[in-house]
Amino acid sequence: MAIITLTTDFGTRDGYVGAVKGVLLRLAEDAVVIDIAHDIPPGDIAHAAWVVATSTHEFPYGSIHLVIVDPGVGGARREVIAKSSAQWYIGPDNGVFAYVADASDEAWAIESRTFRGRRVSPTFHGRDLFAHAAAALARGEPATDAGPPVRLTGTLPWGPRAAGRGRVVHVDRYGNLITDLPASEAGEAVSIDGNTLQVLRTYVDVPPNTLLAYVGSMNTIEIAVRDGRADTRLDAPRGTPVVPVPVVGPYR
Amino acid sequence: MAIITLTTDFGTRDGYVGAVKGVLLRLAEDAVVIDIAHDIPPGDIAHAAWVVATSTHEFPYGSIHLVIVDPGVGGARREVIAKSSAQWYIGPDNGVFAYVADASDEAWAIESRTFRGRRVSPTFHGRDLFAHAAAALARGEPATDAGPPVRLTGTLPWGPRAAGRGRVVHVDRYGNLITDLPASEAGEAVSIDGNTLQVLRTYVDVPPNTLLAYVGSMNTIEIAVRDGRADTRLDAPRGTPVVPVPVVGPYR
Amino acid sequence: MAIITLTTDFGTRDGYVGAVKGVLLRLAEDAVVIDIAHDIPPGDIAHAAWVVATSTHEFPYGSIHLVIVDPGVGGARREVIAKSSAQWYIGPDNGVFAYVADASDEAWAIESRTFRGRRVSPTFHGRDLFAHAAAALARGEPATDAGPPVRLTGTLPWGPRAAGRGRVVHVDRYGNLITDLPASEAGEAVSIDGNTLQVLRTYVDVPPNTLLAYVGSMNTIEIAVRDGRADTRLDAPRGTPVVPVPVVGPYR
Repeated sequence: MAIITLTTDFGTRDGYVGAVKGVLLRLAEDAVVIDIAHDIPPGDIAHAAWVVATSTHEFPYGSIHLVIVDPGVGGARREVIAKSSAQWYIGPDNGVFAYVADASDEAWAIESRTFRGRRVSPTFHGRDLFAHAAAALARGEPATDAGPPVRLTGTLPWGPRAAGRGRVVHVDRYGNLITDLPASEAGEAVSIDGNTLQVLRTYVDVPPNTLLAYVGSMNTIEIAVRDGRADTRLDAPRGTPVVPVPVVGPYR
Repeated sequence: MAIITLTTDFGTRDGYVGAVKGVLLRLAEDAVVIDIAHDIPPGDIAHAAWVVATSTHEFPYGSIHLVIVDPGVGGARREVIAKSSAQWYIGPDNGVFAYVADASDEAWAIESRTFRGRRVSPTFHGRDLFAHAAAALARGEPATDAGPPVRLTGTLPWGPRAAGRGRVVHVDRYGNLITDLPASEAGEAVSIDGNTLQVLRTYVDVPPNTLLAYVGSMNTIEIAVRDGRADTRLDAPRGTPVVPVPVVGPYR
Repeated sequence: MAIITLTTDFGTRDGYVGAVKGVLLRLAEDAVVIDIAHDIPPGDIAHAAWVVATSTHEFPYGSIHLVIVDPGVGGARREVIAKSSAQWYIGPDNGVFAYVADASDEAWAIESRTFRGRRVSPTFHGRDLFAHAAAALARGEPATDAGPPVRLTGTLPWGPRAAGRGRVVHVDRYGNLITDLPASEAGEAVSIDGNTLQVLRTYVDVPPNTLLAYVGSMNTIEIAVRDGRADTRLDAPRGTPVVPVPVVGPYR
């Protein structure tokens, strides 16, 4: 039994998700297919990368994670299988794996007939290529048979983080602003978009409708409004800096 | 094989659903994970309660229903396992179980190490606590090991229903207004927002674009517009009264 | 083990999907339930028909496809099981199967007690009738026991296609316009809404934000805007004609 997860921007109103699942179940009959998310904003590689980072490492070792957010489908980006932290990742090497795998991880191009369909539509690699590769892995075919080893090159629009500084890297369904500033570097308060916010524990530590910072479920600083949305309260889209600030106050 | 269902307000664009599924499959490898609904409006406990009421009792006895709509996460509401009508319910005791379980049902606080993760993020109990409890039950751990017995206290914003009267308790995807007025108390016609509507059988009993009342799939009165939306036609949000009215007409 | 897929307009915020899944797993415990799509626009039969056409044929032979988009529920349309291309289809005979099955395929009315619930809500045949029929098939009950053989009569709003001409038949999540003009009839360029577009290979063959035509994943002509939406760029709703045009240019 192999677990195959799906993270796509296919939405939940078309036949694309179904076509991929059909191929998986046709070619790997024992596979257990698990939906992670299909409403990634169309073509939003950075959004997909964060979703992958926050979910896939929870699965059992050896799970196969299909990630298909691929605005350059049919173009020059490479189709790859990567292995990282005992998880398998399959998709376009366009940055969707940026938080979970990099050039130091084992990866293979998907080129052999066993790992891709006979006819590959230039606009639907999810169905005709990536699903075939996932099913092949699920059946126990060795990844080394997929194609030559390669190095992952996909990156995200923002550069590497500088120590002691963070950026908003994701805005979630609730309008919470997720940053990449580790809790360990944040100290007692942070500044974002001109606001200084003490780092608290959870939403109920402030009155309703109040902005707060806290250590989120990825151990980085998050910004939220209790029972409200931080993304509309602040002008702080992805990429916005978040920095620790010293706090000198009566409570110390 | 244990069935674990998921009802959340996590949406379908973030990694939260995936993280919970990953924990479930890692800790209970034979579990079958079933999505009920993830687009519960954020923090809408009453909405979640209705979804739970209309779906979970259809599952085989012994199914485990995870319900995670938890605006007070990290605060004072209790984390519980409840058993009712041979179904297991796991989630915050904040009202999400109001239609399916109450103080007369067996329930346990989730306190033991076997039923919760070692480190629990104060903002993501779904991943770090409730998923662990569901997996423990799925593996066959007795609920009595979760923690001390407790009584459910969660309630919904509206009070108990008075006999012979109902309220709109849910507005569904189609804009239908679902009430808690039992068909048996409705008689032949009902009044809502100044409209008197004969209780009919189904949508096609009226011309397109026409308002109608009928006995819905939960055996309560529902209000709809054929091929249209009742929620925009009427000014009748949740809580709006619906009452039976005597009908004296030529058809009697 | 039987695969049962679900294509509905139930959305992902109510209990309807869960109720159907509960019945399936209660009555056919070995069934593997697979979501295809639940965000079909409410009552949009033609949309559902395209989703079914683009996904179900990828599944293993013998899969059972439940399709519940049923604005006439409780009315005169027939409830059917159809068999086509070694796939099973269950739903209302209202046109949702128009692209995958027709009067030449075997079909049966769903009338027997084994294939429908004891009490059938006139507004929720998905739960009380179609799910029962799918579970019966999944358990191995012969379709001939469902009821008398019938001929499918459901059709779509647009008539049969004339040779050498196509229509927009679907608008997908990305705003791409999917047509039924086969690639083999399209030649090198097509005209839609006053635009003449060369038929290219994939999105990256044009600069960002540019309109293009290409052979889509169903081997018909599709119209898209690279990194944008064709449905808002053109005035070309479903039913809009797409015709091949001769191209005489310097590149020939």
